Parts: sequence; C-alpha cells; structure tokens
Amino acid sequence: MATIINLEDRKDQPAKASLAPLMSIVEADLADTNVIILERMHSDVELIPTLARHLIAAGGKRLRPVLTLGAARLCGYEGDRAKKLAACVEFIHTATLLHDDVVDESDLRRGNDTANVLWGNQASVLVGDFLFSRSFQLMVEDGSLKVLSILSNASAVIAEGEVMQLMNVGDTSTTEDSYLQVISSKTAALFAAACQVGAVVANRPKAEEEALESYGRNLGIAFQLVDDALDYSAEQQALGKAIGDDFREGKVTLPLLLAFRRGNEKERAFWRRVVEDGDQQDGDLEKAVEIIKKHHALDDTIERARHYGAMAKDALGIFDENEIKQALKDAVDFSIERAY
Amino acid sequence: MATIINLEDRKDQPAKASLAPLMSIVEADLADTNVIILERMHSDVELIPTLARHLIAAGGKRLRPVLTLGAARLCGYEGDRAKKLAACVEFIHTATLLHDDVVDESDLRRGNDTANVLWGNQASVLVGDFLFSRSFQLMVEDGSLKVLSILSNASAVIAEGEVMQLMNVGDTSTTEDSYLQVISSKTAALFAAACQVGAVVANRPKAEEEALESYGRNLGIAFQLVDDALDYSAEQQALGKAIGDDFREGKVTLPLLLAFRRGNEKERAFWRRVVEDGDQQDGDLEKAVEIIKKHHALDDTIERARHYGAMAKDALGIFDENEIKQALKDAVDFSIERAY
Repeated sequence: MATIINLEDRKDQPAKASLAPLMSIVEADLADTNVIILERMHSDVELIPTLARHLIAAGGKRLRPVLTLGAARLCGYEGDRAKKLAACVEFIHTATLLHDDVVDESDLRRGNDTANVLWGNQASVLVGDFLFSRSFQLMVEDGSLKVLSILSNASAVIAEGEVMQLMNVGDTSTTEDSYLQVISSKTAALFAAACQVGAVVANRPKAEEEALESYGRNLGIAFQLVDDALDYSAEQQALGKAIGDDFREGKVTLPLLLAFRRGNEKERAFWRRVVEDGDQQDGDLEKAVEIIKKHHALDDTIERARHYGAMAKDALGIFDENEIKQALKDAVDFSIERAY
Repeated sequence: MATIINLEDRKDQPAKASLAPLMSIVEADLADTNVIILERMHSDVELIPTLARHLIAAGGKRLRPVLTLGAARLCGYEGDRAKKLAACVEFIHTATLLHDDVVDESDLRRGNDTANVLWGNQASVLVGDFLFSRSFQLMVEDGSLKVLSILSNASAVIAEGEVMQLMNVGDTSTTEDSYLQVISSKTAALFAAACQVGAVVANRPKAEEEALESYGRNLGIAFQLVDDALDYSAEQQALGKAIGDDFREGKVTLPLLLAFRRGNEKERAFWRRVVEDGDQQDGDLEKAVEIIKKHHALDDTIERARHYGAMAKDALGIFDENEIKQALKDAVDFSIERAY
C-alpha cells in the first residue's frame, strides 16, 4: 500500500516502527521456509493442497515463522532446523485459523472468502486436522524431544484457550483476568513457543530460552490486544477494512469489557441486549464504537498492549545489542503502532 | 445384553468368536489405561473434561487401546509404556470421532446424543483439537521418536482419508479401489499404528513389528467393512439399532457401491436420485436395503471382510502359538461375526 508522507508533519514525530529490518534479516531463511511449507502441504488428496494454498498463499506476514527464524538468528544459529520448525509453527497457526473460521462462522478473512465458505465447514475441519498432523510430522523429523514437548504443549494450551473463549462468548461479566487468560492461551502460547524453539535449536542456555519465551509471550499478548482494538477502530474502517467481527460474534474482548465496566446502566443494558441476547440491529455497531470511544476503551486497550510490549522488549535485555535484537524490538513497536 | 441360546440349535454351529479372551488378557493393563485416560483428559477449562467424558465414558469396546496392549503382551512386554500409548491411541480416536460427528452432522452415536448436539459444533471441533494435542503430549512423554513417527504419520493419513471420503460423498461412480483407500486411511491406519507400537515398546525385531502392523491394518479394513455392512442390516434394525446413517449422508460405502454396479438402469436412477441429488423420501432407505439385498451386496461385503480378516490372522504366523495369539485371532473373527 502506498503512503504519502507529508515531510513537514514528519519532523515532529518519530519514524514509525517497521517490520522491515526483521524481514530483511530472515529473508533468505523465510524463502526456504516457504518452499518447505509448499512442499509439505502437498497430499495426493487434491482438496488438501487446494484449500491449504488458499489460506497459506493468502499470506499475511508469516509473523510466527519469522519470529522463529529471528530468534534462532539472535542466538547465533545458522543451520537448517529453524526453517523446518518455522514451517511447523505456520502449519499449527493455519490449522487453528481453519478451525476458528468454522467456530466463528466467519465469511471473510483478510478480505477473502474464508475456506469454510468456499469448501464447506467439513473440509475446513479435516484439512485443519491434516495440517496439524503434518506439523507434528515436521517436528518428529526434526527429532528433538524438547522441541516436540514445547510445541505439543503449546498446541494443547491453544485448544484450551479457544474453548475458554467459546465459553465466554456473550458473557458481559467476563473479567479482564479471564480475557487475558484466553489471549495468553489462544494467541501468546504459539508466539512464545515459536520464539523459544529458536533458542533451543541454537542450543543456548536456559536463561536465553526463557528470555525468548517471555519475549514471544508478551509480544503475543500485545499483538492480540491491538487486534482486538482494531476490530472497533474507525481508522481501520476508514481504510476500507472490515470491523465489528468480534462484536457480531459476541466475543467479549477488552474494548467491550472495559466499556461495559465503565458504563452507566443504560449502556450496560445495550451491551446485554447485543452481546448476551445476541439481538443486534442496524446501527448497533456504530453505537458500540461510540460508547467504547466515550470510555477511552480503545486507547486503554492500546495502553495495555504497550505494557506487554515493554515487557517483551525488556525480556531481550540479556542479549548483546545488535541489529537482530533491535529488529526484534522494532517488531514489538510495529505490532503496537499498527493501531494508528 | 442378555441372549437366550437355544441349545438344540447350537449343536450344529461352531461357538461364536468372542473378544472376551483378549479383554481378559489385558484387563489389568486396560484398567490402568482407563485411569490415564481420565487423568489426562482433565483441563481447568471445565467444558473440556465434561465433553470428553461424554464420549470417552460412553465406552464402546476400547478396541484400539486393547490392541496396543494385546500386541505388546504378544511381544512379551510387561512394562508401563504400552498403557500410556494405549491412552494416546484412544485420544486420537476420540478426537476423530468428535470431528467426524461435526462433519457428518450426526445426531446420535451409540444411541446417545452426539457432543455436537449437546454442546455445539464449535465445542466439538475445539475439544477434538485439545484431545489430539493431548495425545501428542502423551507420546512426547513416552519419549520414543519411533513411536512419535508412527503415530504422527497415522494421524496425517487419517485426516487424508477423511478428506477423501468427503470428496466421494454423493459420487456413485466411486470405485471399490477408491473406497478401499478411504477405509485403509481413515480406519485401518490407526489400527495398524496401535498394533505396531505394541511391538516397538517391546523392542522386537522389524519382522514382528511389520507383522503386527499388517495384522492391525487388515483387521481395521475388515472391521470397517463390517461396520459399513451393519449400517444396512435388517438384523441390526431388528435389534433396535439405528441403520441408514451412511445412506442419509450420501456416503458411498461398499454395499451401495456394489449394488450400484450390479444394478439395472432403474436402480441406478434410484441411487442417483437419493445419493447424488440427495433427494430422499420416506421409504427410500427400505428400498435401498431391498436392492442391496437383491444383489447380495451385504453378503459380499462380509466376504471381503473375511478376506482381510484371513490376512490379519496369517500376519501373526511368525509368532509362537499361545493364548495371546489365539485371543488376537479371535478378535478378528469377532469383528467379522458381529455382522450376524
């Protein structure tokens, strides 16, 4: 997307953080990872690669595999294992997306029809299972029981987080703690594991492994907080991106949760109608955005994200200063600044 | 279920094969496996054990874990590893059932409401993912890369088989080869892996491992063939069991496939209407059963099962004769004779 920068304005504000430095460091590794991804999503059962391609080729930033590759580089690793494990992490993520879209009954992802719309829920469930199994095959090929343990634990935690989220749907009494537990499990667990395995393949001491695990976990929480804020963002809407998915699905994310707790009785009655009773009418999303704005719930969601982002950056403190570490810190800032 | 046996009649026919000898050999191990299953399906997210319990406690024969335990015993193994791997095999199976019921939109399993009816498709998908992840955690705890490889490969093959089956739905031109490939993948792969890991934990030579793999695979094919026959069996119906699930879902199983190929133009038009167009009316299932019977398609499906059953029993030829081997052979006969 082209952006026109007004140079006069630019003087007053710091340059925006970018993912570019990290992407450039892992560029060659990521190209190899992409080859592995394409090779390993193959199956003689044609529908499998067709459907997987739809989601995997649609792209996105490949943030999770990039983190595995970046973490491995930070630890001085230059071998091939990280590439395969990065593919494995992307497969787990893709399997989760396929099952999520079935669960959420989503029609669109990144502006494209979701796989469940194009090929049906059944295919999405089963191809998700295939990619999930394939990710385990890749791990087994890597041959490290430690890596297997980290990634299989993450998978179980992700599933627990998704079930927790399902149980909180439509429940306006969801607490911030409970919300945090959901996003820590469903999102941050894979970010954490993706980073930790980078240290494991490099055979680094426990302290570095834990530092990268913590970096990933806090970055994952920050990332999801910003995602949840963007779903109510007027700026997003102005850019032509869809908003309100969480609202329509009755997901009680932090912006809604804060607005509910800070609201008056009339506002709470509104939230109960639209979220608990699922009775949504034209104009309700706009009204929700208005109430959320009134209570500064979006700004404060981003503030929370900043807090976790700061923890993520501090977790890297034990590593020497170098361009890779700086790039990983920039990735944190990028994850937060995309809110603006 | 109590059965009244007419002793006069009994003289003329051989005693029916039974699963009892195998069950009695593995009884103590299976009790331990059941404890592991109950412990390891625990999660602080309450819905997970609740839903898992519904399916796992509902029982069935635990045939797959029993095979792991029996295969290990045949190989002289007396340690604890087989129990945990038996639990792991049951978790994979249960995860598959949960996802199957979503895919098939089933309402009943073993006469009980299915989990998707009671808790929704979403919960079934996600708890299936959890059990699948948990099965991998159990394998990782076992610590054998060989076991991990066998079971993760089986999982990927199962998912491929399920997608293949989905693609064959409503397709009356499905060949017997294609049908066999589906059941080899979706059912027999797990039977094969369940038996093979029994030899692996016992550290037995490759020949014994392969023999048990072959036993399991052929038993699995026979088992599924009989299952598919039972779904059109008037005897089943007379016992008060539901039939016609495959018919309603448009699954082209061997009884239907044979009847279609052996049928006349009028019959083929019938199959095309009910299976391809999915236009089913009252009395169509009865008509389907009648046509299938006319072409001896059920008897011949059972004949095919006998063929694979014979291969399963022959695969055990390299093992010494003893009561465990006999019990495993009885299990094959039992799987086939339950058709009557």
